[in-house]
Amino acid sequence: MNIQTPAVVVDLEKLEKNIYKMQQFADKHNIKLRPHIKAHKTLEIAKMQLDAGAKGITVAKLGEAEEMAEAAEDILVAYQLVGASKIQRLLSLNKIKFITVAVDHLSQATALNSLAQEASQMVSIYLEVDTGLNRCGLPRGADVVQLAKGIRGLSNLRLKGIFTHAGHVYAAKKEDVPAIGQFEGEELVRVAKDLAKAGIIIEEVSVGSTPTAFYAGQVTGVTEIRPGNYVFNDAIQLGLGVCQEEDCALSVKTTVISTPSSDRCVIDAGSKVFGLDQGAHGAATVKGFGLVKGWPQLVISRLSEEHGVITVDTKLGPSPSIGEVLEVIPNHACQVINLADYVYVVKENNPIFCWKVAARGKVV
Amino acid sequence: MNIQTPAVVVDLEKLEKNIYKMQQFADKHNIKLRPHIKAHKTLEIAKMQLDAGAKGITVAKLGEAEEMAEAAEDILVAYQLVGASKIQRLLSLNKIKFITVAVDHLSQATALNSLAQEASQMVSIYLEVDTGLNRCGLPRGADVVQLAKGIRGLSNLRLKGIFTHAGHVYAAKKEDVPAIGQFEGEELVRVAKDLAKAGIIIEEVSVGSTPTAFYAGQVTGVTEIRPGNYVFNDAIQLGLGVCQEEDCALSVKTTVISTPSSDRCVIDAGSKVFGLDQGAHGAATVKGFGLVKGWPQLVISRLSEEHGVITVDTKLGPSPSIGEVLEVIPNHACQVINLADYVYVVKENNPIFCWKVAARGKVV
Repeated sequence: MNIQTPAVVVDLEKLEKNIYKMQQFADKHNIKLRPHIKAHKTLEIAKMQLDAGAKGITVAKLGEAEEMAEAAEDILVAYQLVGASKIQRLLSLNKIKFITVAVDHLSQATALNSLAQEASQMVSIYLEVDTGLNRCGLPRGADVVQLAKGIRGLSNLRLKGIFTHAGHVYAAKKEDVPAIGQFEGEELVRVAKDLAKAGIIIEEVSVGSTPTAFYAGQVTGVTEIRPGNYVFNDAIQLGLGVCQEEDCALSVKTTVISTPSSDRCVIDAGSKVFGLDQGAHGAATVKGFGLVKGWPQLVISRLSEEHGVITVDTKLGPSPSIGEVLEVIPNHACQVINLADYVYVVKENNPIFCWKVAARGKVV
Repeated sequence: MNIQTPAVVVDLEKLEKNIYKMQQFADKHNIKLRPHIKAHKTLEIAKMQLDAGAKGITVAKLGEAEEMAEAAEDILVAYQLVGASKIQRLLSLNKIKFITVAVDHLSQATALNSLAQEASQMVSIYLEVDTGLNRCGLPRGADVVQLAKGIRGLSNLRLKGIFTHAGHVYAAKKEDVPAIGQFEGEELVRVAKDLAKAGIIIEEVSVGSTPTAFYAGQVTGVTEIRPGNYVFNDAIQLGLGVCQEEDCALSVKTTVISTPSSDRCVIDAGSKVFGLDQGAHGAATVKGFGLVKGWPQLVISRLSEEHGVITVDTKLGPSPSIGEVLEVIPNHACQVINLADYVYVVKENNPIFCWKVAARGKVV
């Protein structure tokens, strides 16, 4: 295999280890693992996760669900679907797979119910609860019981569970990660108990991002975790103390193409490869736009679309020459995946497969 | 055409007007327009530019050149190509098209010459000069004459011109744009004169980004401009005073999917649609992650990958309801294009074509 740079490379053994570790955690605590495939968008990796014991998968968008239907029987679309065209697509998929979809407002539920009724289908629902991210989901203090009752009053919907994503953990300090995870789990279990008191018994209490899964997943009453990034890890996870450098399964190979001055060189990977994510804390947790393995003197300080500008601290070591191939752990692996058409899979540094990123760019 | 959101939409009449305006400027000043196709990556638009009078196109990567070869005869790869595989690909293309490639170091030139010699081909070269961006290119004070002589000493290369890209204009204040453009042109003409004094006569003196093209292009001695973004314009160009809102030909249609509180709503477009670019100055020139047309009370304040979180200033107007379709001028149109598989082309708001973004993601 002739790998031309920039190239996204996945270390198979590290990937397998990461998949195994999360599955082992879920099995030990007797909870379901329903990994979010946004991190890899790749059928081969979804199959590995399911083979290892995952009970289903999570996706954000319908297009991802359609693409992943080849690999998975049980798919949670953790997203509010609005508009008849999307609901019709959901119902097409719901005919052949176990589909669950997110709701956080009665208007979404009634629109869905009306088309489900026409199609004589039952659709499973997860009600979204906000545990601090301030994005979608019912905020603290909102009347979850009322919405749940409203959903239960709709003939063709089945309220299967509640879910949350504590994504604000990415804006937290390393030392606060455990408490955020624990709160995520406890808060969702509290909501489940409120529902139970009102006579509404749900099957699933679903939490988790990669940083919080190990904490939220241990809370009694939680039944499911949905981490995504753990398959690869990245520099943001490193900054949060979630993993070590040797756990980072995804990297970018990039070539030095220009050395205009002794303290600056330019690589052939820019924002079209790395994305611009520096994490919510920027410089506090990550340094520049990726970690150059084995070159402590290099910081990727600026990205144009096709260029990465590296600052060289010549006190720590020399500048690389034109043609040098560097290996970079990106800040945010999910973004890198969404920008890549395919990834090279290596074993002991030898490329053995080229996998298509099948659900790349499926935003609709 | 059933347009599901998020969708990238191009207004055909605005696009045509933008293409015409830049061509008219080039014609008036008797210089060549060689647009950078990074902005659109679309064969249909490249053909429109060439039909309007562009003398060739500019691309950043070989993969873009390969994709655009269907539309263009004369292609500048404004990028340093390093490694035998890439040079071989360049030579394959050079057999059938007029290809020019960037060099800023003798080592790139000798590697290229050696393979060109083997293939019995002549390759045209543009030497890259840095006029303040501090990325690639010979910095001020470097010995351009020496490198040019080195290139001229290589039998299978032809030094056709010099070029620069004053990309640092994007980090400048609105009022400094004209001076940066003028300096870009004057500095490059100065280098061309230095070369002429040493007996090295070049054909092309090539400058220009969208903000600087109108200023650099007026400098006597400049022969070519290479703007890209002007076909669409975007919120960063608006912030730099380069265009008006009615000149923005590209927008994103997105649906409100959740309204968790009165001052917050969530749309179905996130960083996977908009990218994370806020320009070099962030809040000084752009507000949030895109301009919501006709809704002054809305600021897209945060992006996750699949969600845009909008802050509503309820003093200025109400929050939109679930299902409302908003139209957003993105901060950086080039990024939006690189994230989109296709764009919808509208005329008087009616979709008439769906164009494939053929060179999307071609980073190699």
